[in-house]
Amino acid sequence: MSHPLNETIASITNELGELLNVDPTAIPAYKSELPGELFPKLTDQQLVDAEAGDKTVLALTIDHTILKTEALPAQVTNLCEEAKTNRFFAVCVNGSYVPLAKETIGDAQVQVAAVIGFPLGQMATQAKAFEAKQCAADGASEIDMVINVGLLKAKQYKAVYNDISAVVTAAGVAVKVIIETALLTDEEKIAACVLSRFAGAAFVKTSTGFSSAGATVEDIALMRSVVGDNLGVKASGGVRNFDETLAMLKAGANRIGTSSGIAILG
Amino acid sequence: MSHPLNETIASITNELGELLNVDPTAIPAYKSELPGELFPKLTDQQLVDAEAGDKTVLALTIDHTILKTEALPAQVTNLCEEAKTNRFFAVCVNGSYVPLAKETIGDAQVQVAAVIGFPLGQMATQAKAFEAKQCAADGASEIDMVINVGLLKAKQYKAVYNDISAVVTAAGVAVKVIIETALLTDEEKIAACVLSRFAGAAFVKTSTGFSSAGATVEDIALMRSVVGDNLGVKASGGVRNFDETLAMLKAGANRIGTSSGIAILG
Repeated sequence: MSHPLNETIASITNELGELLNVDPTAIPAYKSELPGELFPKLTDQQLVDAEAGDKTVLALTIDHTILKTEALPAQVTNLCEEAKTNRFFAVCVNGSYVPLAKETIGDAQVQVAAVIGFPLGQMATQAKAFEAKQCAADGASEIDMVINVGLLKAKQYKAVYNDISAVVTAAGVAVKVIIETALLTDEEKIAACVLSRFAGAAFVKTSTGFSSAGATVEDIALMRSVVGDNLGVKASGGVRNFDETLAMLKAGANRIGTSSGIAILG
Repeated sequence: MSHPLNETIASITNELGELLNVDPTAIPAYKSELPGELFPKLTDQQLVDAEAGDKTVLALTIDHTILKTEALPAQVTNLCEEAKTNRFFAVCVNGSYVPLAKETIGDAQVQVAAVIGFPLGQMATQAKAFEAKQCAADGASEIDMVINVGLLKAKQYKAVYNDISAVVTAAGVAVKVIIETALLTDEEKIAACVLSRFAGAAFVKTSTGFSSAGATVEDIALMRSVVGDNLGVKASGGVRNFDETLAMLKAGANRIGTSSGIAILG
């Protein structure tokens, strides 16, 4: 990984390690109990296959997503059926729809991901932790939480670290941390990824889809450089077609959050 | 109240009363323990005074608001100081900032309002209730929750009623129900207000400020006609100057949620 910001990454990693009394080299990689190879980047061969249009590889990277305020139960049911038919990796829904999604998916090999503190990330830490625990109890096997951007920008790193840690502990399942790249400087993106790694997150994720912009290949490359190969990187927000999906995967993403999964495979 | 939709209001009220086994005429008005006259409409004299530019009356209707993802602690502190100086009714903040707001306001007569399930309203009911309880414990004396719009549109009225009831019970303080008017038909707006009243809410509120549109005078007039004089009506989203504020108050609002409070009084 020869990213132009590698020196900055090393510097911020060490600084945060000292602040939080964490050895940056000794953080265990997240251990998934979920099926399949979730966290390494796609292999070079898989990328070649994807570029040649291998829909199997592409489908397994997609979190099939509906998160809007006015989402109807029937739309969630339909989303789950589409995910089963197309063998998407997961569906991604709001908390109130986790039981319905779990019931609809049944025994099929599709995960249910639930968003937490979404999309503002400004809920109290205790409320985020409770919400994560509730969603896991209701059947979510992945939790997509929003980082507290305001506290990150104010350099309240211990509070941000504790916020993520509390959710990781309460969830008991893989946690993705949405850092909302559109609102961050490069240094803030790096700090967000380091804090997520230190706190035991399974993934870092670019965007909620509710802010001013979504995923970019530049951000995916930066985030991959920060977290290395032991965490996942999820590109989300504005990824709507095959070419954009492929660009994200080539830049280092191994999961795509999108409401356009059918179009991407089509 | 001679609203053109009065027959529809009566019909929906009776229908939901039967469904929920509630006598529509026997719902007790919300009893506030907060200082001042919060829930009646402004008196005719107060409206005349406001129209003549009485800033005292206007200030007492304003929830001084900052809810964006990237809100900094220093901005929240500043918001609270402005609220004290200008004698706004309340500040309105996200959950993670309730302790800071409460500390900054100290003994001053400014309430702290916290948003719940915000802005999508799609959190699980248990998570909304926990978040409300947490915010009240942290010092919030008002709770602004978002209704579950998806379930409302799917006519799952019992679930929507139970969602609001759970928050009202857990909060133990005045609850405002944000119905997100921009996404609703007139019939859905009426049902949302009826369910809020039945469930013991103190206020109905138009908008989160994060959807496609905010408050309109037509919606304020409709909401006031549904809830009568014993609940509050809060206009929020896009209210940015004196004339807009006055128009909302004349239409029946008795609280204004805005981030432009200083400009409105200026």
